[in-house]
Amino acid sequence: MIYHLFEYFKAQGCDFPGIGLMSYISFRAICCSVAAIATALIMGKKTIGFLQKKQIGEEIRDLGLEGQLAKKGTPTMGGIIIIASIVIPILLFGDLSNINNILLIVTTLWLGMIGFADDYTKVFKHNKEGISGKYKILGQVTLGLVVGLTLCFSSQLGFRDKHNNNYDSQVEIAAAGDIGSVVSLENTKTTIPFVKNNEFDYKWLSPFKGKLGDYFKWIIYILVIIFIITACSNGANLTDGMDGLTTGVSAIIGTTLGILAYLSGHIVYSDYLNIMYIPNSGEILVFMCAFIGALLGFLWYNSFPAQVFMGDTGSLALGGIIGVCAVLIRKELLLPILCGIFLVESLSVIIQRCYFKYTKKKYGAGRRVFKMAPLHHHYQKENIDSIIKKPYVALPEAKIVIRFCIVSILLGVLTLVTLKIR
Amino acid sequence: MIYHLFEYFKAQGCDFPGIGLMSYISFRAICCSVAAIATALIMGKKTIGFLQKKQIGEEIRDLGLEGQLAKKGTPTMGGIIIIASIVIPILLFGDLSNINNILLIVTTLWLGMIGFADDYTKVFKHNKEGISGKYKILGQVTLGLVVGLTLCFSSQLGFRDKHNNNYDSQVEIAAAGDIGSVVSLENTKTTIPFVKNNEFDYKWLSPFKGKLGDYFKWIIYILVIIFIITACSNGANLTDGMDGLTTGVSAIIGTTLGILAYLSGHIVYSDYLNIMYIPNSGEILVFMCAFIGALLGFLWYNSFPAQVFMGDTGSLALGGIIGVCAVLIRKELLLPILCGIFLVESLSVIIQRCYFKYTKKKYGAGRRVFKMAPLHHHYQKENIDSIIKKPYVALPEAKIVIRFCIVSILLGVLTLVTLKIR
Repeated sequence: MIYHLFEYFKAQGCDFPGIGLMSYISFRAICCSVAAIATALIMGKKTIGFLQKKQIGEEIRDLGLEGQLAKKGTPTMGGIIIIASIVIPILLFGDLSNINNILLIVTTLWLGMIGFADDYTKVFKHNKEGISGKYKILGQVTLGLVVGLTLCFSSQLGFRDKHNNNYDSQVEIAAAGDIGSVVSLENTKTTIPFVKNNEFDYKWLSPFKGKLGDYFKWIIYILVIIFIITACSNGANLTDGMDGLTTGVSAIIGTTLGILAYLSGHIVYSDYLNIMYIPNSGEILVFMCAFIGALLGFLWYNSFPAQVFMGDTGSLALGGIIGVCAVLIRKELLLPILCGIFLVESLSVIIQRCYFKYTKKKYGAGRRVFKMAPLHHHYQKENIDSIIKKPYVALPEAKIVIRFCIVSILLGVLTLVTLKIR
Repeated sequence: MIYHLFEYFKAQGCDFPGIGLMSYISFRAICCSVAAIATALIMGKKTIGFLQKKQIGEEIRDLGLEGQLAKKGTPTMGGIIIIASIVIPILLFGDLSNINNILLIVTTLWLGMIGFADDYTKVFKHNKEGISGKYKILGQVTLGLVVGLTLCFSSQLGFRDKHNNNYDSQVEIAAAGDIGSVVSLENTKTTIPFVKNNEFDYKWLSPFKGKLGDYFKWIIYILVIIFIITACSNGANLTDGMDGLTTGVSAIIGTTLGILAYLSGHIVYSDYLNIMYIPNSGEILVFMCAFIGALLGFLWYNSFPAQVFMGDTGSLALGGIIGVCAVLIRKELLLPILCGIFLVESLSVIIQRCYFKYTKKKYGAGRRVFKMAPLHHHYQKENIDSIIKKPYVALPEAKIVIRFCIVSILLGVLTLVTLKIR
């Protein structure tokens, strides 16, 4: 709103100190992050008090983990703090005519709503399972479809494809003023690491050529997008099981995505790094700054020992935002590296279940690969067994969270490195 | 060493894949950070075992804080892990002919040695006070003098001063090839926020003009450098009192300084941001990446609950590195913002002591401003009193550390913002 107000004043010919600053992406990004932290900190205290009064905390399954019963009484649904702290600053400082921002806001609210419905059912209806998994998946698939179709039809989304034309660099294109002709609007290219030009086109997967191939490549692309968004959203949801874990890891992933978005949207840097130049994607940095700020503010209360949990309200939305953001800047194939923590946590659950079912069929009794899934509980569980069985370095909750965050920072650095090395 | 080996091969006309990569600062910075983390992780486990065997942990004064006695038995002197993990990667990948690197390595080893002497006296001589404060200060002052004199006499240190010449931008200077003439070698300018051009010259403080004024400005400059280094080193030392606190805060400060060094050393960016262009300062990024990597690796073991403390070996060196780095990139006057945590911790001790002495003189009995100094113990103490006196949100150690880190991130962002806004 403030951004558009300033733009309106500028169009009217008004001039006052600071009026020019608002048009800088970097300035608005900083405003957004500060506003987001402030919102989370101010809202946090009151919201936690309110949630605590309304609910006596999430029903906690007894998993036999140390310190776990002490969590009883801690309110959940803290995700609404995160969502409000993202949406309010972006409404104030974001460019609301930018399709990237609109898609990201829709993602936040949509997945937040689904998560809220789940949390609400769990807490107030005392239904431990929450809403059915089918509905959650349906919601995520719908969102993926919307994002995919928007990418397919929007005239704002596209990137300049310098390899198809006569120019050597983006700067040359800009100098020649030949902008319109080199924006590829209908393009299913994306970035993959370790190959020449770092580019991959989904159309290579299409078995057909010509017009039919064109339709087909979009179907593949949209299916990939749906998968990415669903996987991220559920990955974040599974990771959420320790104080500050999803919050910290998501903030680190968000920072990396913000850097990538800024570089992709900047004509000089994208050229220098030889990555796709994606017009308008700089605005994603503004959104990601609100995202990071909201998470840092939330971490203030959510860090060990947590005063509030984010619940599905938070985790589904966080994962979804990460997925959509990666898709928008065409870096979705870097997610297995960047979101390595989410991936490994999800894989640990899948492996555990499959192995258990397989061994139950074969030997009659199910066996386990991990002491417990998702993975973070595996390390926590080891701690307790160690007292009885073997001397093992104890891994308390706070330490596991910090270590997962350190690994996440390494993965973020690795993701940025992939752009440079080929 | 590897860097110089590659440069030697290149000079000999050898050509093999990757030989060019080593000349990129960004590539070497990444190598350094990865090598530093790896060194810290690998060395950490063995060193902790060794330290634990040799000492039964630092003598812990009973401060009446929750969980404090549980720290007994945790080995100290972990700083040697940090120092080795900084020095080894920088010897491998750093440009050892660069005066910035030499100064920073000297700082690390020198202050590490002083800290080690202190820790050694505390642990093995069972002298709770360690070496006398006088010797510590003497060591820090000597270092400040060395750094100051180097800045004064080295021909490698200096920056291009575009305001004294006929060019509009650094890029123009480079294009004109007029590099030699615009490097100001004898220059006491520095950066201060919120003023036009963001520049301040220590010579303005000199009461004399002409040749005498020239000598005088250097004396002022060197005194400031000595103060900065001593203050940082002792600030980090005072802050070190909670698991992961100094480690986390220093890593965040190091990241900000690394970004500033890279921007200052890059001709295009420094111009774009209108900050001083400091030739050769990009190399500081390589050092700071080793610094950040070493801290992240150390945090693996040092995070709550800590398996090892850094001791004075670590904290004196960390603070010193931060101070020297800021001086080298002429950003020392931004430190009160950037190192806000160190500053506030130090101030809390000073205020506490002065107020106690003052009230003792006046009322007979000393009174306190903080429940305990340094500040981090104030929040921890409040937690315990609350059980008896008033309902106050409990602040356990792990939470205080995360919150101090969040504040530190905010201060880092604020420091970067000061460059943009004036």
